[in-house]
This record gives sequence, C-alpha cells and structure tokens, in this order.
Amino acid sequence: MLKFSCDYMEGCHPAILQRLAAVNLEKTDGYGYDPYTRCACEKIREACGLHQAEVRLLVGGTHTNTIVLDALLRHNQGVMAATTGHINVHESGAIEACGHKVMPLPALDGKIDLDHLEHHLAALKTEYDAVGWEHYVVPRVLYASFPTEMGTLYTRADLERMRSLCDDYGLLLFIDGARLGYGLMSPDCDISLPQLARLCDVFYIGGTKVGALFGEAVVVSNPALTIPRGLIKQRGALLAKGWLLGLQFDTLFTHGLYFDIARNAITQAMRLRRGLEAKGYTMHGHSTTNQQFLVLPNDRLPALAERVGFDNFSPVDHHHTLIRLCTSWATTSQQVDQLLECL
Amino acid sequence: MLKFSCDYMEGCHPAILQRLAAVNLEKTDGYGYDPYTRCACEKIREACGLHQAEVRLLVGGTHTNTIVLDALLRHNQGVMAATTGHINVHESGAIEACGHKVMPLPALDGKIDLDHLEHHLAALKTEYDAVGWEHYVVPRVLYASFPTEMGTLYTRADLERMRSLCDDYGLLLFIDGARLGYGLMSPDCDISLPQLARLCDVFYIGGTKVGALFGEAVVVSNPALTIPRGLIKQRGALLAKGWLLGLQFDTLFTHGLYFDIARNAITQAMRLRRGLEAKGYTMHGHSTTNQQFLVLPNDRLPALAERVGFDNFSPVDHHHTLIRLCTSWATTSQQVDQLLECL
Amino acid sequence: MLKFSCDYMEGCHPAILQRLAAVNLEKTDGYGYDPYTRCACEKIREACGLHQAEVRLLVGGTHTNTIVLDALLRHNQGVMAATTGHINVHESGAIEACGHKVMPLPALDGKIDLDHLEHHLAALKTEYDAVGWEHYVVPRVLYASFPTEMGTLYTRADLERMRSLCDDYGLLLFIDGARLGYGLMSPDCDISLPQLARLCDVFYIGGTKVGALFGEAVVVSNPALTIPRGLIKQRGALLAKGWLLGLQFDTLFTHGLYFDIARNAITQAMRLRRGLEAKGYTMHGHSTTNQQFLVLPNDRLPALAERVGFDNFSPVDHHHTLIRLCTSWATTSQQVDQLLECL
Amino acid sequence: MLKFSCDYMEGCHPAILQRLAAVNLEKTDGYGYDPYTRCACEKIREACGLHQAEVRLLVGGTHTNTIVLDALLRHNQGVMAATTGHINVHESGAIEACGHKVMPLPALDGKIDLDHLEHHLAALKTEYDAVGWEHYVVPRVLYASFPTEMGTLYTRADLERMRSLCDDYGLLLFIDGARLGYGLMSPDCDISLPQLARLCDVFYIGGTKVGALFGEAVVVSNPALTIPRGLIKQRGALLAKGWLLGLQFDTLFTHGLYFDIARNAITQAMRLRRGLEAKGYTMHGHSTTNQQFLVLPNDRLPALAERVGFDNFSPVDHHHTLIRLCTSWATTSQQVDQLLECL
Repeated sequence: MLKFSCDYMEGCHPAILQRLAAVNLEKTDGYGYDPYTRCACEKIREACGLHQAEVRLLVGGTHTNTIVLDALLRHNQGVMAATTGHINVHESGAIEACGHKVMPLPALDGKIDLDHLEHHLAALKTEYDAVGWEHYVVPRVLYASFPTEMGTLYTRADLERMRSLCDDYGLLLFIDGARLGYGLMSPDCDISLPQLARLCDVFYIGGTKVGALFGEAVVVSNPALTIPRGLIKQRGALLAKGWLLGLQFDTLFTHGLYFDIARNAITQAMRLRRGLEAKGYTMHGHSTTNQQFLVLPNDRLPALAERVGFDNFSPVDHHHTLIRLCTSWATTSQQVDQLLECL
Repeated sequence: MLKFSCDYMEGCHPAILQRLAAVNLEKTDGYGYDPYTRCACEKIREACGLHQAEVRLLVGGTHTNTIVLDALLRHNQGVMAATTGHINVHESGAIEACGHKVMPLPALDGKIDLDHLEHHLAALKTEYDAVGWEHYVVPRVLYASFPTEMGTLYTRADLERMRSLCDDYGLLLFIDGARLGYGLMSPDCDISLPQLARLCDVFYIGGTKVGALFGEAVVVSNPALTIPRGLIKQRGALLAKGWLLGLQFDTLFTHGLYFDIARNAITQAMRLRRGLEAKGYTMHGHSTTNQQFLVLPNDRLPALAERVGFDNFSPVDHHHTLIRLCTSWATTSQQVDQLLECL
Repeated sequence: MLKFSCDYMEGCHPAILQRLAAVNLEKTDGYGYDPYTRCACEKIREACGLHQAEVRLLVGGTHTNTIVLDALLRHNQGVMAATTGHINVHESGAIEACGHKVMPLPALDGKIDLDHLEHHLAALKTEYDAVGWEHYVVPRVLYASFPTEMGTLYTRADLERMRSLCDDYGLLLFIDGARLGYGLMSPDCDISLPQLARLCDVFYIGGTKVGALFGEAVVVSNPALTIPRGLIKQRGALLAKGWLLGLQFDTLFTHGLYFDIARNAITQAMRLRRGLEAKGYTMHGHSTTNQQFLVLPNDRLPALAERVGFDNFSPVDHHHTLIRLCTSWATTSQQVDQLLECL
Repeated sequence: MLKFSCDYMEGCHPAILQRLAAVNLEKTDGYGYDPYTRCACEKIREACGLHQAEVRLLVGGTHTNTIVLDALLRHNQGVMAATTGHINVHESGAIEACGHKVMPLPALDGKIDLDHLEHHLAALKTEYDAVGWEHYVVPRVLYASFPTEMGTLYTRADLERMRSLCDDYGLLLFIDGARLGYGLMSPDCDISLPQLARLCDVFYIGGTKVGALFGEAVVVSNPALTIPRGLIKQRGALLAKGWLLGLQFDTLFTHGLYFDIARNAITQAMRLRRGLEAKGYTMHGHSTTNQQFLVLPNDRLPALAERVGFDNFSPVDHHHTLIRLCTSWATTSQQVDQLLECL
C-alpha cells in the first residue's frame, strides 16, 4: 500500500538515528541543559543570521503554537489567523483553552487576504475607538503559516506588507513553520531564512515533518520578547530528556541537512504534479510545496483508496472530492512513480 | 440633552426602589438564601410554565453568558453564535477566557442563517468523521439572542427549527434574553414565554435593560442540566446580598410588571420608527423591538450629536453611518417627540 | 430573631438610598463613564493621599481578588496568603480557576507569621536557585487581609516589614480590605489610610460590608501597575450601570461617612466584647474589630440558635464550638443589649 | 564524572533502539492509530489484569498529571496531594494553570499521613455542610505517588485504606507512577501491579525514568471514566508520531522487560545503601527504591561535587545538606562501586 496521506509517517533521517545510538547510554543533563541543545541552538541562530536570538526546542506543533501565543498574549488580546489556519481549525481549540480568541480572517487558497486585512484593521480601530477597547478582543498577534495549509507561499513582498501592517497597528508577527523547510525549498520561494527571520517577531522551524522524530525549534527574533521556561514547564513541554531535541536539530542543522532533505520532498512533489498534469488531471490551487491537491470524482475514490493512502480533504460538490497527496523528506522517486501508475 | 444611545441608562422601576427602601435595614440572609429570592424564582418558574426549573439570579449579561457556557461546555467543545452575536463581538473574549471557542455563523440582519447552519452542521460532521473528532472544536451549544443585537426576532418556526437541528446534532440551545421583554412585547413576536422556555435548554430573562438596577434571571429548562452554585461563586458572581436580585425580580414578576414596562419601550420605538419613516428616513433592517437603526449622511452627525446621544454603530460607506437609537421601559412620549424634532 | 452571623445582612446607609432615589430616572452613561464615578474616585484618591492612583470600582470581594490577582500575575507566578486567608479558603478556588496557585503560609490568629515568612522566602530562593526556577511556582504577590479573617490587625510595623520583605524578594503587596473601615477604626489600629495606601502596591476599600449595597474600591498605589478595563469586562465585572458604584462610594467618601459608620460597628463590637467578658465568657483571639469569636459548650448552641443567628465557625474539640458574632455599620446598641441578654 | 543526580539521564533500553531502527522508514499512521500502539496497550492491559481498561500513551509526567486531572475535575473541584507531592511542588503550577487547586496534605517521609487525612476529610465535610459547599474547593481526587518523591512506598494496607476513604467521601484515587517499576520491584513492595491497578481509578506507568526515551502509560481502571482524546490533542499531547510511544511500551511490556530493568535499579540502589551504611553513613528515611537520601556535612560537598553529580536536595541545618543519589535501569555495578569509592 502506497501512503501519501501526510508528511509525518516516517521516523527520522538515518543520521539522527546513528547519533542517537552512539550517545544513548551516555548520562546527559536534563531539561535542555546539555551540550547537544546548546550546539543546536547555536547552529539555528547561525542559519537565521540572528546571533542573539532566543531559541526554544519543543516537541510538537500544537504545543508550540499554544505556548508561543500564551507567552505573547495577555487578557483580552487575540490572535488573527486565516480561517483555514491550523490554529483556527485543527488544534481542537488549544488557543482558546489557554484563554485567547482566534480572530478569523478571510483567506484565498490558504493565504490571508492582505487587502482585506488592511481594511479590516482600520475598521476595527475605528469601531474600538468609538465604543471603547475594553469591550472587544484586541488583536495582538498576526499568525501566518509558511507554507500555508494549502501548500501556498507568501512572497517576500507579502511578508513585508504584513510586517508593515503589524508595525502600524501594534501587532506581533508569528509564523508557523511546521513545514518551513518545504516552503524555503519551493521553486517559488523568493525569501531566505534570515530574511524571513528578520521580518517576523517569532517563528518556528518544523522538525516533525522534516526529518526529525519530533521537534519544533522556536526562534524569537524580537529581542524584547521571551518564551519563559517556566511557562514551557507548566504547559508540560519541558522534555525531561531535552537532549533528544538538541541532538536532532544539531544533526539537521549540520551541513545544511535540513534544507537538503526538504528539497527532496519538493522535487518529488513537482514530479508528482507534472505527472498528474500530464495525465490530464487539474490540480487545485497553486501549491509548489510538498502538499498537492487534486479534485477527483467520488466514484474514483474507492478504487484509489484500495491502493493508496491519501487525505480525503473536503467535498467539493456532490460528485467531487478534494484529496491531498503529500511527499516528505523520505519520499522516493519509485514511490511517486507507483502513485502515478495508480491514478 | 436627549439620550437614546442605549437601553440601560436609567436606574430601576420606582416600584423596586420603594421595596428596597422598605426592607433596607432588615437583616437578610446572604447568597440568595432569602425569601425574596425564593419568591422571585417561584414567580419566574410560574411565568415560564416550568414548575421544576432551576433559576439562578446573576448580576450582568457578560457574566451570565460566561457562567452558563462554562457550565455547559467541556474541553474541546465550543459554542456556535452569529458573527454579530454579543458573545462573539462585545464581551472582550470572555468565553475564550474560560477556555471555549465561539464558532461564528453567518448572520442576516442579526439572525443566524438557518439554511447555512443546517448545511454547515452536516459538513462538519462529515469532516470530523473523516479526520477524527479529537482534532476539532466540537460544537455543543447553539447561542442565539432573542431579540438579536440588530433588533430582529426569530419566529416560532425558526426556534423550532433550531431545536430540531440541536436535537439532530447533539447541541444544546441557549438563548440570550438580555432584552427578552422587548422581544416578547414586539408586535412581530409569535411566541410566548412558556413556548420559548420549552424550546431551549437554557435561557435568561434580562433585568438590567428592562426595569432592574441590574440582574439577569437564568432559567434552566432542561432538567438534566445545572448551573452549579460553586461555579457561580468561583466566577465571582454569587452576590453577597443576593436578596437585592430577589427583590428586583420578585417585583418585576408581580402582576406582570416586567411585560408591561417592556411594552412601553416597544410602543415608543414604534412611534419613533413611524415618525422617522414619515419624515422620509429609510430605516435599516426590520427591527420591531426597542433598538432602531438609521442610516445617516456623515455630515448630519455633528449637529445631531450636539442635541442627542445615539450609538454610532458602524460606517456604512465613506459617506454614511449606521446609528442606533434605543428606547427603554422608561422612555416617555415626550422624549420621542423631542427626538423626532431633532431629526 | 437577632442576627449577628455576618456583617453584610443590611442594605445600605440611608444616605445612599436617598441619592439613588433622587437620580434614579436620570439617564447616565454606562460602564463607569459617569460623573458620580469620577467624583467618587477623586474623593477616594484624596482620602488615600494618592492623587494619581488608579481607582476601579467593582461589585464584590471574590471578583475583586480574582481580577486584581489576574492582572498582577503571569504564567507560573503565585500569590502567598495565610492558610486562613479568604482567597485560600472561602472563594471556591477562584484564584486557581484563573490559573494561579495560592501558596499557603502559616498564620497565627489570622495573621501571617512574619518570622516564618522571612525564613521561608530565603529558603525558597535557595532551593529555586539550585534546581531552576522554571520547575516551581514563583511567588509574586503577598496577599494580606486587613483586618484578617479572625478580626486581628497587622500593626504599622508589621506592614512595614511586609513591604520590606516584598522589596527584597520582588513581591507585590496586595491588601484585601473587604472590612478595611472596621480595621482603620479599631482602637488598636496604629496606621492611617494614607500610610497603609503607601505601603502596599494594590489594596481595596470594602463597601459591601461597610455601608454600601455592594461595591469594592480598588486602589492601585503603585503607578507602574494597572488593572486593565478590558480584563474587568472580560471577567464580567464591568457593571453596565457603573454609576451605581460611583454614587455609593461618592456618598461614603463625602464628609467621612465611611469612617463614621465603620466606627459604629467597632463601638458596638467593643460593647459586646466587654459585656461577654463581664459575664465570664472567655473570648477567643484578640479581635478589636467587628468580628468577635467566642468558645461555647456544644450543649448551649441549640438554645442560643433559637434566639440568635450566629456563625457556627468551627469545632474546637468534641464538646466546644467556636462561634462568630459580627456587628456592622448598622448595628444598634439595643441589638447588642438584646444579644447580651441571650448569652 | 559519575552521575547519580537523577534517573532519566540515559536514553533508552537498547532493545527499543533496535526496533526503532528496524521500522524507522516504514510509513505508519499518526496520532496513535498504529499497530505498535494497539499492541502496547493490549500488553499493558494484560499486565494489569484489566482487559477493558482505557490506556493512553503520553510523552511526559507533568503533561500526564495535568491532562488526567483536567479530565477528572470540574469547576471548584480540587486534588488532594502530599505537600511534598510532585504536582504540589515541582510542576510549576501546572494543575492550577488548568484551573484546579492542589490541596496540600501533611506528609511523613513523602507519604500522606492517612490518620490525618481521615480526620481532615471528616472535618471538611462538617465545615462545608455548615457553611455551604459552594464557598469551598471540593476535594474530588486523591493523588499519591508510588513510590513517593522520597523513595518510600505505600503498603497494600495503605492503598486499601485510601481506597476506602475515597469511597466514603466520593473521591477518585489517582496514582502517579512515574517511577512505578522501581516501586513494584522494591523488596518492601507488598502489592502486585494488578492489585494496585484495581485499587485506584487512574494511574500511570512511567517510561521516561524506566527504560524509555520518553513516555507515560495512563491506565484508566475505572470504566466510568475516560481521558478524552480531544483533551489530549487540545493540551498539545497527541504526538503526531504516536507510534514512537507504542513501539517503546510494546518493547518494555514484552517478556517483562520493564520489570527486569526496573529490578536492576533496585539491586544497585540496595548495594549503594548497604555500602554507605557499611562506611558509617546514616541514610535519611527508609527508601527501598532507586532514590537514596544521605545527609552530608556541607564541607564535604565541594570535593564530592568534583567527582560525582548528585542532587543537592535541601538544607538540613546550617551545617548539613540532604543529597539524593539515584540509580536507574541502566546503572552498572561498576558505577556504584566507583561512587562508593568517592564517598
């Protein structure tokens, strides 16, 4: 059975497993006070061109979004996100559970509509000024996924415009990079990691979906902000054997391994897209990252499902369904070829 | 200066003040364990035709919405509400602050679009079944204001349809009746208090806007539910001198005072509406309750604002603004006549 | 039936009721944006000798403690309080419900043992430094009731020592003054309101138990702190008719009414204490405020309970019970005489 | 440098690493819907003799305590725990951060004083009945660590007495088994895993400290209870590659590996204890598990710290310090011999 339903089905890159085996019985200090973590954080800072940035290594994406936002928000402050944003849809209300509203924004193909956002921020300000800010949720963070949940990418100009809107309205810009590697390696990406790092206040570099067993590296670009260790502990996210995170990110950020393996996912995704287009399929949206979306007639689904695992994304109409096919750092050309044969 | 900006600018009906003066120096047991509260709750049950219902007397609307929803929701459960619903817009994120998502629904003139809701509930079920419910906020309560924030009313058929949808999808129906009296006394209202009480699981009868100094009476129609007193205390809403609430609601529900004074607001609002239409104004929406909405050219606003307090509701376009004018239980014919002269 | 079980059984001072009747049908702006509130806050600042202090008028004590502490605490910060402190015992876990630990401190006759506190703070610092602060709740606020729940008073020297410990360990000092008037008017009180105001960061002046229908006036002495209005709204404590609070405190702080009526409670409590001592009763503790504690043989309780309402405070041993008798601003000499006759 | 400061310094048992390497590039379904997890849960149920029990695999201890308690508690309910209990001291206020009070109980050598507990529960009931339960935190869960944080063990009789008290007062019994293996393998342990499982409502089997890279297996013995998957997701604890947890527990519960390796820690701890006693040291407390406590003169600490990592537990007096030495599943005889030479 071929499996293309998501990008976190394999374990980790073999280089990580080798190092883990090598140090397994060493006695290492806990909670991230270990040399692997120190080294990993240093390499991440280096890759981001932010030599003083705070870096926190956490286990998973929902946890990371929750902890970062809990650190950044107070009282009646909220976070703006695309209606399709992960925190608005797929995290079981995690942000609300720590007390904050996700303020939904209209999205086009997964991307926040920036024209709408600009108008909306102005209108909110007018309304709040008139009635009194205390009656409202006050937007404080703008959350954007790079790449988006639909595989699309904000351009450098988009991100600069977001930065500028954030500055105008006193917002912080937080980028969910659960699939950051797959964004940066896309042929359509026009921004480098250091450029992206400088444009936002906080972002993270996803490991779970890009070569690690688990792990997300939060980078706090804005030196006025911090993600307190006490909050991380309190939320159950201070891994006892924190060196497991350090070791993985240290490996991924040695000799650019993270980027190399991310590139593989893109290469395979583009082969898949071109292959499907050649067969006459119409792809949905403009993803040039590792998630590809395809509209299939419902009567094709059962047969396909016997041979291929895919993500039954959403109904399009009574007769068609949008399905998602994902490649990953570990996807092989052979797997893609086999998939194309099934379609 | 005439003031029509909201419906809670006066104190209380004089009958309440008289009784307060009469018992002021009596020593009365605290926390709602007093004869006035017992008597008020009994009269409210009587008026609702629900002889076993739990009744809780609370101080204000935001508090009431928060406590009711906190009592009804668990973990990743959320509450569906019109995008224009009070809990979604004007309560400073109170629901999220107790851990629960407000799930916005498209609204027409303040009313939830029930066709959309029906389709939406079916679509959510399909999606959640496919992906796994644990990733999503699970809708558990449907929140509707009666009358709505735009002064409109659900018909009896609307409420029956909501009830039916709630039954089909395992939802509870909660009606915010902060202005309940003004809804029930509207010429367009086709439902009685007992009928409304039976159609929902929990609702409340607003006193703050309808004759009381403060106070909202929560009625738990569904005998399987409760609003625990321990939760009320914990949320800071167990008034030490709870008899103040009892005394007010006891007065309002003696000889139908609540309904009589609510009717006055409607009489005055209808006079205002007809007066404005006679002068050639086009009213916005179809409010037959105590809130009336009017589109004015922006250049008319400053002069009007010198003579009348109104609620600068929202911009309509670059040249027009929607303003809200409210009557109340205490509004006099003379005040309406003066207002009409100013317009 | 005589009632001495608590100090919030009567309504309000008649002067308040008169003013309420006078302005009842005026239309007054909501949410505290009214002249009565402005005037009350100004008079409170004046009485405290803090001309720039932020003053917030809230409805009840549990709400006030919760909102102040929620405003002052973040993440893994906690509040230290006597084990007998109101927030630790009688508020149904309100502080924990907004996410913060109440860290209990040993108390003597209701007062925090300051020698123990000094040693404890030093020990915590040593332990946290050794293990890492992120694993612990970090004390951030010291909460003390004035007078305490046992009717006792901190001396000026006590409060100065608390201030000094707070400064040494980075704590804020928050005084719960639900019965502040009864403390300040005690014959044993050696501190003035302005002195107390200057020694703490935040405190409040209780109205519910001292002449108001309801109301607590929070004074933020420390200019670096604020209790945000958005938080007050979110927690359901922004009273729509905020002018009700303004009117009451304005009345209480005109010509020292608050202090005059508080003094009455003390006069009556001291008469009661002396009367009981004269009859041979041994009083428990050293209360010189309006709460008096008496140990009674259990077999005396039923007969007393037929004639007098008292607070059955706690069992002392298998044969004796500690009962509490409270006077208030409204207690008359005749009521005390009658009580003494019953004992 | 010898390291005995805690029991989670090594990675995992080599058998786990081998299996991980073997399946690393398999594509496995996420979120615990994988065959390894199913198989692990089945083996755990088997080992507990609870064939229908719900089993949840989570990453770490603080998270597990938080999620279990959040699932079991509502509103003003709290959890009783020893003052020295992990949730009361070392979890940064995690339980309070999800809204619930930890109610501290006096402890002797780490164990809850059951005589005191029995008296305390009766006294609380009397007090709450008199005043009204709504004013108090209502105890709902009794939390006990097995073994305790001081290395001691409850006997079977102790646990039966707790069960009986819980039944009498409507409490649930929750056992924190972060070091469960080290308790069960102690020479003093007089209870089996199935017996313990039956006596409590929920407990967990610690993996992080007993052979796994990470992981705690929650067992819900009481069929009326559940730990909802939606809550696990919302709290950020639904590991994307949940099979990592399944694989580890499946390995540990195959052929009793968990117990065998736990026994090694005890063997080494007893060798250490006897060696220290032979050298004339007086051990603190009666630990027969893997944590051993020793009182050392402060002037001995610097020299020891140069050669050995230990946990500087707490000051005993001005001249002595209590230190903790931990063995683990991976500790070798040679390491213990070397440690004894240093002391």
